[in-house]
Amino acid sequence: MLKTLVKHCVRQNAGFISCCCYRSVTSEDVNKPYVIDLRSDTATKPTKEMRDAMASAKVGDDCFKEDPTVNELQSRVAKLLGTEDALLMPSGCMANLVAALSHCQNKYCEVILGDQSHMFLYEVGGMAQYGGLQTNIVKNLGDGTLDLDQISSHIRPADDRDQPQTELICLENTQNQCGGRVLPLNYLKEAYSVAKKHNIKLHMDGARVLNAATHLGVPPSDVTQYCDSVMTSFSKGLACPMGSVLAGSKDFIARAFRVRKSLGGGLHQAGILAACMLVALDTTAHRLHEDHQRARMIAEGVIEVSSPAANVDMDGVDTNIVMIDINKEGVSTEDFCNRLAQVTEAESVDLGERIVTKMFPFTKKSVRLVTHNDISDDDVRKTVKKLQYVIREISA
Amino acid sequence: MLKTLVKHCVRQNAGFISCCCYRSVTSEDVNKPYVIDLRSDTATKPTKEMRDAMASAKVGDDCFKEDPTVNELQSRVAKLLGTEDALLMPSGCMANLVAALSHCQNKYCEVILGDQSHMFLYEVGGMAQYGGLQTNIVKNLGDGTLDLDQISSHIRPADDRDQPQTELICLENTQNQCGGRVLPLNYLKEAYSVAKKHNIKLHMDGARVLNAATHLGVPPSDVTQYCDSVMTSFSKGLACPMGSVLAGSKDFIARAFRVRKSLGGGLHQAGILAACMLVALDTTAHRLHEDHQRARMIAEGVIEVSSPAANVDMDGVDTNIVMIDINKEGVSTEDFCNRLAQVTEAESVDLGERIVTKMFPFTKKSVRLVTHNDISDDDVRKTVKKLQYVIREISA
Amino acid sequence: MLKTLVKHCVRQNAGFISCCCYRSVTSEDVNKPYVIDLRSDTATKPTKEMRDAMASAKVGDDCFKEDPTVNELQSRVAKLLGTEDALLMPSGCMANLVAALSHCQNKYCEVILGDQSHMFLYEVGGMAQYGGLQTNIVKNLGDGTLDLDQISSHIRPADDRDQPQTELICLENTQNQCGGRVLPLNYLKEAYSVAKKHNIKLHMDGARVLNAATHLGVPPSDVTQYCDSVMTSFSKGLACPMGSVLAGSKDFIARAFRVRKSLGGGLHQAGILAACMLVALDTTAHRLHEDHQRARMIAEGVIEVSSPAANVDMDGVDTNIVMIDINKEGVSTEDFCNRLAQVTEAESVDLGERIVTKMFPFTKKSVRLVTHNDISDDDVRKTVKKLQYVIREISA
Amino acid sequence: MLKTLVKHCVRQNAGFISCCCYRSVTSEDVNKPYVIDLRSDTATKPTKEMRDAMASAKVGDDCFKEDPTVNELQSRVAKLLGTEDALLMPSGCMANLVAALSHCQNKYCEVILGDQSHMFLYEVGGMAQYGGLQTNIVKNLGDGTLDLDQISSHIRPADDRDQPQTELICLENTQNQCGGRVLPLNYLKEAYSVAKKHNIKLHMDGARVLNAATHLGVPPSDVTQYCDSVMTSFSKGLACPMGSVLAGSKDFIARAFRVRKSLGGGLHQAGILAACMLVALDTTAHRLHEDHQRARMIAEGVIEVSSPAANVDMDGVDTNIVMIDINKEGVSTEDFCNRLAQVTEAESVDLGERIVTKMFPFTKKSVRLVTHNDISDDDVRKTVKKLQYVIREISA
Repeated sequence: MLKTLVKHCVRQNAGFISCCCYRSVTSEDVNKPYVIDLRSDTATKPTKEMRDAMASAKVGDDCFKEDPTVNELQSRVAKLLGTEDALLMPSGCMANLVAALSHCQNKYCEVILGDQSHMFLYEVGGMAQYGGLQTNIVKNLGDGTLDLDQISSHIRPADDRDQPQTELICLENTQNQCGGRVLPLNYLKEAYSVAKKHNIKLHMDGARVLNAATHLGVPPSDVTQYCDSVMTSFSKGLACPMGSVLAGSKDFIARAFRVRKSLGGGLHQAGILAACMLVALDTTAHRLHEDHQRARMIAEGVIEVSSPAANVDMDGVDTNIVMIDINKEGVSTEDFCNRLAQVTEAESVDLGERIVTKMFPFTKKSVRLVTHNDISDDDVRKTVKKLQYVIREISA
Repeated sequence: MLKTLVKHCVRQNAGFISCCCYRSVTSEDVNKPYVIDLRSDTATKPTKEMRDAMASAKVGDDCFKEDPTVNELQSRVAKLLGTEDALLMPSGCMANLVAALSHCQNKYCEVILGDQSHMFLYEVGGMAQYGGLQTNIVKNLGDGTLDLDQISSHIRPADDRDQPQTELICLENTQNQCGGRVLPLNYLKEAYSVAKKHNIKLHMDGARVLNAATHLGVPPSDVTQYCDSVMTSFSKGLACPMGSVLAGSKDFIARAFRVRKSLGGGLHQAGILAACMLVALDTTAHRLHEDHQRARMIAEGVIEVSSPAANVDMDGVDTNIVMIDINKEGVSTEDFCNRLAQVTEAESVDLGERIVTKMFPFTKKSVRLVTHNDISDDDVRKTVKKLQYVIREISA
Repeated sequence: MLKTLVKHCVRQNAGFISCCCYRSVTSEDVNKPYVIDLRSDTATKPTKEMRDAMASAKVGDDCFKEDPTVNELQSRVAKLLGTEDALLMPSGCMANLVAALSHCQNKYCEVILGDQSHMFLYEVGGMAQYGGLQTNIVKNLGDGTLDLDQISSHIRPADDRDQPQTELICLENTQNQCGGRVLPLNYLKEAYSVAKKHNIKLHMDGARVLNAATHLGVPPSDVTQYCDSVMTSFSKGLACPMGSVLAGSKDFIARAFRVRKSLGGGLHQAGILAACMLVALDTTAHRLHEDHQRARMIAEGVIEVSSPAANVDMDGVDTNIVMIDINKEGVSTEDFCNRLAQVTEAESVDLGERIVTKMFPFTKKSVRLVTHNDISDDDVRKTVKKLQYVIREISA
Repeated sequence: MLKTLVKHCVRQNAGFISCCCYRSVTSEDVNKPYVIDLRSDTATKPTKEMRDAMASAKVGDDCFKEDPTVNELQSRVAKLLGTEDALLMPSGCMANLVAALSHCQNKYCEVILGDQSHMFLYEVGGMAQYGGLQTNIVKNLGDGTLDLDQISSHIRPADDRDQPQTELICLENTQNQCGGRVLPLNYLKEAYSVAKKHNIKLHMDGARVLNAATHLGVPPSDVTQYCDSVMTSFSKGLACPMGSVLAGSKDFIARAFRVRKSLGGGLHQAGILAACMLVALDTTAHRLHEDHQRARMIAEGVIEVSSPAANVDMDGVDTNIVMIDINKEGVSTEDFCNRLAQVTEAESVDLGERIVTKMFPFTKKSVRLVTHNDISDDDVRKTVKKLQYVIREISA
């Protein structure tokens, strides 16, 4: 409990705002350190191909479903995720909100979701504020799953006059707050069967569902077959500047179209964004395994030091997120991150280069780092070098 | 988890509707059993004095605060609970809803409350539906409390842009779902200090707060000093036909007046109800200890049998609610309740009278009975007689 | 426009609060004036028979539909209004809110209603706040109706993606703000046919629908046949302390039951109220023509003076409401009402008695008076005497 | 009334979907007509400079206010409109919704707006659905204004317990539904003073406010000084693919930031859009007078024919919108638009070219056409040629 509280506070105090120095090395300034930003994969910049695609995109008015590039994107994503239809969304937050509002069509609805889910924690309570949906939270286990018996026990009886009605279960895959954990296919299958048994919809917050599929080595549709709708984000590992897609049945997407419009998510020549996202499907979507590999390389670099002061649970490194547990009296996770963001004179001499690594003091005990499209193998080598140096330093 | 699910189902299937035979013995019909209804204290009928008071009440238009009897009631309850002001409410459900809507004045608010609280479970999700409030639930412990560290850990950081803002904590006292447990004064004090520390309001769902005060042997205001608002119901142990009172500061009640009106809770000559409630303050409010005593007598009667098939945890019998744990293969809590509601020929001979007792199959493991104003010492003796007979029968 | 603005201001300034002296003549105090309160029929006190009925009512738990008196009331009202089912409500405001929330089951609904309707003006915007319903107002004509072409033109096309969907039309009958005007049966028939043509529901705010039926000389069901639901209040001309009934189809009432519960309108032993309301059906409901007659007598008394300073349009006196138009430089409607509430020495001598009449400065131009169950023929004579005296005084 | 109804239906039936052939002339196909799309300025395609700007935009994470291009855009727009701050929005619909939700912070708020306003008609009732705001509509006059006495009369008294509270007035400038009419500066000043007098906020839906400023020949800030917030769209005359900006005080924009996030309008590398919008400020924003001129040229072309069958009120042609009134028995506005979209053999011979013009059957009586960035002087000449031919044809 204390842990969660602290995490919130830490998140608050050491937000992006307060540590916003981005990589910018110029040849004139040899003293300027080499900066590697591992705080999040949302910070990825669009690639050259994406920029070119935006510049030359064929567009129409998507408010009237007349944008050919948007139509192509939606059609390709629906195929990729094995759904009847799909809808472009400006953001993942809107996609999740639209999903909840489109699934829950009655008054007095309840949504079951994880206490560590993004939808519950970081989407400003939109489901309740705008949808009147009561949230019934279940504790996320360490592997990102929700205990299925717990889910079952939270489902309301079908016709009790005093109780709200359970209409939706939300799962997050990969589970961000738990360290990018991938929900096992078998688990998803069972969870979906619980939902079906009670005639409840299941929405997957799949902001990083392509990372999940990559980890499992299966087509994305193998993962998303166990839900009624799925949202996937293009502005994380896929490196698009913005944009998400919500996928589901034709009926669901028809409702979602109207909900999106009502929230102000209907965009005229949205083909600009879709062009970028189509490039991602052809390029960045196929290189997520590199991010995963690099995450493991960094994790292994930490373990190599064999210091009790900083450790990583390799079983938890499913995708592109690494959680470094800091366990050293007098060294907070903030201290650790601050140290990584500085270069001492001694270090400069010892390492022969000036490396700054940006990471996130996620909880009182854990530091989070995320690999992504703007991180190269060389960045990884430098990150390991720096991490090992600092861990040894604090372990001394 | 399974337990909770089953509880819901049981609640559903064995509702009041399906077992609604009320006590009605006539001298002509000697075969008619003597019926003792222990299902709930909400079923209490108004007393003779209450009916007389209603018949002669001085009334005015309470929509314009001109009803003298309402004004007197509100003034007396405010004094009793140690608050600046108070407001008559048609029901406890409305009082709780008005409290939440009056405390939470901003968008994106979150309310922390127990997963076994009445407000979360049985008030149709009104806080979310009508107030847009996100519910952040904490597990109720066996004694009815919420772990204070858990509460703290669920409080949102004060100015995170992505998170809803915690604005209210709700405690239930006595905690109905946990068996009428009384929250300790010291616990309340600490909980209130957690709320104050974070500048959050604390509302007490004190539907049975007078039972709590009676159990603790303190004035009600000793209990309610540790909250910003409290609702107390007059249609449970106090035996009024309907009516609750919401109490709090002048400002809070001024807001609540408008919220009540908007929900349709403004009543014209409400003095009719208030007259009844004033009688309760003078009569039934002072006899709750009898209900508690009688609850203990019945509980002791169960324990006396020393059967593993049916047991009561005496530590849990704080007030007028008794939970009988049924632990006999082949005998469900519904079976047990159904048997109590019947009279066999053998039993009729053995006991020398025909007794029917109505109880509630609360969960798969527990049967709930509630003593109240319509239950006499003789009813208790008969209930014990019947219970012991049936427990011995199923234990054989 | 100015007129409406002023009305609001007047309503505000000269509210009930500021003129709350009630009739209370004692033999000891011969100087105390005789007070006749004509401000509203909501101020009526319950009759002796009602008080007796409350005192002896058979009750059960209406939250479980087990209250026999409530069941009888609902059944009788449904029959009276020609609907399949009916539901007791604590107030008319809740009945209207429940109706709107029960009819409009989808998101993005719009309700068409009069700009002078009680639901739009004086129910705190509950439909929008709690139901998310957009209000599309149409100007009330002088006779209380809404132009049917106007209604038609405000109905949204059935499947426009950008527009909310019209799901409900609300009519008020009698129309309070327009002076208690009765909507003609033929008008109701046509309005209902407009609604049906567009597959839209029609709700009648029939707070005083029994006055309408009385005026038309037809059974109430003749009036209410042209709507999908109707609310009728028992705390106005019928003189009950509180209570309304919402009537409609079985399906509608089943939904309304749940909505009522969610708002906190489920009451346990509501038979207390229902007993009172049953008495009203047998007594006060049959004497509304007396109120109408007395209203006309007072109106004629005003006309008799033939002063340009104060006049009544007899065509507008359909029921128990009279609007006196004040047209005298230097005499506001508030001045007029204040004068009526005072007794001068000269007047005392001239009239041979001390009469105070309470009326309502409804707009800048009109004073409203309402006859009701607590107003006798003698009160009417006294009222006319006083009114004529004061009108002559200001006309001098 | 009938007019409005029909307009809705017409809008419905002859929507963009059903007439979506866009201009696409190839040299191979000499028979293919030259297509001029005048249906709306939302259909404008981004210019070459815009596409280039997007391709090379410097971006950061705007969710953390770290996108330099977004920051520059917001700063420039704030300056342009004379406000303290500004916020990028994905769409005008979201900007309006965010404005309403950010201004109205209490429960039971009411918004006064025009019955022909876009916010009331075409934004899916979002204010009510998501903000619980009651809409209090006032009739738009022919020149797009709302009568100020009407507005005043619709403002609620400040502390009536039963009435919602007026917290916002919305004006639309230019008024789209009235034909792109510009609200006079003096009118805006007076309207703002009404709002201030009652301590109510005034929001301007300035989707086309730059057209208004262009028409008036004043800086945009001269127009927007008379409101508390203004939304301006970049995807209409300015030709951006999407994007709007909401401008107002620092406090207001701080609240709007959070509301935007909650609706899903927070975008990561939004600099892509902002780059495009910055180009618009430097280019397309300065050529709106050309659209206005061209609109007048077309209007004059219609008038030149001097046919009673088709006419334009030149006084109503303030900006880039022309309403052609069709007044010929047997020729509906749909017929007229359909004819314009076809090329007959005779016409082909007579005119010496094959011209198709796309216009919008706006109401039963009026056809709407809109000039914009993709319409050249030559397009105007062709449009006039075609229009005159067809008008003469139907007038014959």
